[in-house]
Amino acid sequence: MKPESELLAHIYARSKHIARGHPRIVTGPGDDCAVLRAAADPAAPALLLTVDQLVEGRHYDADRTSIDHIARKAVARSVSDIAAMGGRPVAALATGALRDTFDNENELFDAMARWGAHWGCPLIGGDIARTEGPSVLTVTIVGEPHAVRGPVLRSGARPGDGVYVTGALGGSLGADGQGRHLTFDPRIDEGAWLCDALADRLHAMIDLSDGLGRDAGRIASASGVRIELDAALLPIAPAAAGWRAALADGEDYELCFCIDPVGGDVPARTPTGLPITRVGSVIEGAGCVVRTPEGDTIDAAELGWDHGA
Amino acid sequence: MKPESELLAHIYARSKHIARGHPRIVTGPGDDCAVLRAAADPAAPALLLTVDQLVEGRHYDADRTSIDHIARKAVARSVSDIAAMGGRPVAALATGALRDTFDNENELFDAMARWGAHWGCPLIGGDIARTEGPSVLTVTIVGEPHAVRGPVLRSGARPGDGVYVTGALGGSLGADGQGRHLTFDPRIDEGAWLCDALADRLHAMIDLSDGLGRDAGRIASASGVRIELDAALLPIAPAAAGWRAALADGEDYELCFCIDPVGGDVPARTPTGLPITRVGSVIEGAGCVVRTPEGDTIDAAELGWDHGA
Repeated sequence: MKPESELLAHIYARSKHIARGHPRIVTGPGDDCAVLRAAADPAAPALLLTVDQLVEGRHYDADRTSIDHIARKAVARSVSDIAAMGGRPVAALATGALRDTFDNENELFDAMARWGAHWGCPLIGGDIARTEGPSVLTVTIVGEPHAVRGPVLRSGARPGDGVYVTGALGGSLGADGQGRHLTFDPRIDEGAWLCDALADRLHAMIDLSDGLGRDAGRIASASGVRIELDAALLPIAPAAAGWRAALADGEDYELCFCIDPVGGDVPARTPTGLPITRVGSVIEGAGCVVRTPEGDTIDAAELGWDHGA
Repeated sequence: MKPESELLAHIYARSKHIARGHPRIVTGPGDDCAVLRAAADPAAPALLLTVDQLVEGRHYDADRTSIDHIARKAVARSVSDIAAMGGRPVAALATGALRDTFDNENELFDAMARWGAHWGCPLIGGDIARTEGPSVLTVTIVGEPHAVRGPVLRSGARPGDGVYVTGALGGSLGADGQGRHLTFDPRIDEGAWLCDALADRLHAMIDLSDGLGRDAGRIASASGVRIELDAALLPIAPAAAGWRAALADGEDYELCFCIDPVGGDVPARTPTGLPITRVGSVIEGAGCVVRTPEGDTIDAAELGWDHGA
């Protein structure tokens, strides 16, 4: 069984060509969202599209997690992908392949509809089926990019950029599995504000689902650059077991972004009160490494968390 | 465990209000697709959005069905929803929650990408996860409505309309489970041609997933009318065991539509060579009934097939 990241890499590699020359596909697979023009006319509005899954036993513990938290996480994961492009969610579709013995389907879909509406993307469609195995939920979200900055891709980082994160990292699972990964707020307002405040100085962005080590590596790979993270700079969440956990735990759903240093200072906090912390630099080269507090350099790809590993 | 149709009815009932007054939602849950405007501007292009699931053991037999047929059916079911609105598919997103022991993930996603491209909706995003249980695939499709006729909803049928179907019905599963339900061609060209040829005389349309009896009942319910089907008129597929099977087997993925009789004859065939058959009438009232060859009248809701029952 291959890890999920490898499977996705395969899809991305095979699909890279599809945007080329296509009148409507602006960005194909491989970023937080696909970007599609609403019509072939180059002046037609662009849309963000993303879909994510929530699998019982893998992304939540069915015995311990409330229906509301399951629904919330299912919607929030996809909303976070829209936030990672600097966009705003507009509408959602949800599916549930529900375990035969699961009897709270109305409550679950009502809760997904409620969370969708909460984040600005009412549930406009979906499908329910039954399965003999673990429940699988998916949420597809249509979003709109920032009106001025446009979609912020993973691929725009340039040597000289600073690498920043919102909030604090690590320990999201919690000691009892019921931690922040169930109750995080997708950084919609923060992503849009970064676009407002930094405009074209905001070169690249991603949301942190698999740990800063791995996700910063995705920016490096998409941008054709090298990222050096500094463990001593990391904003470590109280629940996290040190800098390694902050880099590797995953499911932070904070934003990681690369900013052109030319043009002004970077604010220390978002208007919503989150700290903005510089955690590293973009340089020429390839890959993503971490400078440890002891001064060693380690490969960040060794640290991240793979949901499917 | 409630049947799927009841679960969906719940979502629809709770969500009917969401389109009301919303600047972008033209049609919310409860039709073959949702209809969303690409921007709040009423002149912005409308988009069709649908998502459908394919569950191992429920929609296909993993031991007997080829990867290509699994992929094809996963994509085709959603494409058929776009065709049912008279629209054309534009782009697709696919997810797979794949059974731990399933090792053909690259082949599966390549095949979904190939079938998406085949039907005009390249795969622009997706997600892969692992599950300990049966595999669950979803395909989300973005489509565009017919440029002149706009989206053909389920809710437009009026008393006096004739009820028609494309193709022949029943026996889709096949004796060995490997029948037409795996290899059907979604009726994209036929749906668009009906819009071209009939324009505003094409009052309502649906694709036949759960059997004509149940699906015609959905048009009746959405339109606030009664539909009477005539068993003696049904185009029965060679593989179907008589008129009851043609009404109830499901997974035909043919189009069922209601036409205003005023304004001209209805063509006997589509340009693609499919027969168009009148199978009933729309009258005042509620519900959907079938006139049997013996002259009895039975409730069509008793006949349709529920995937989740």
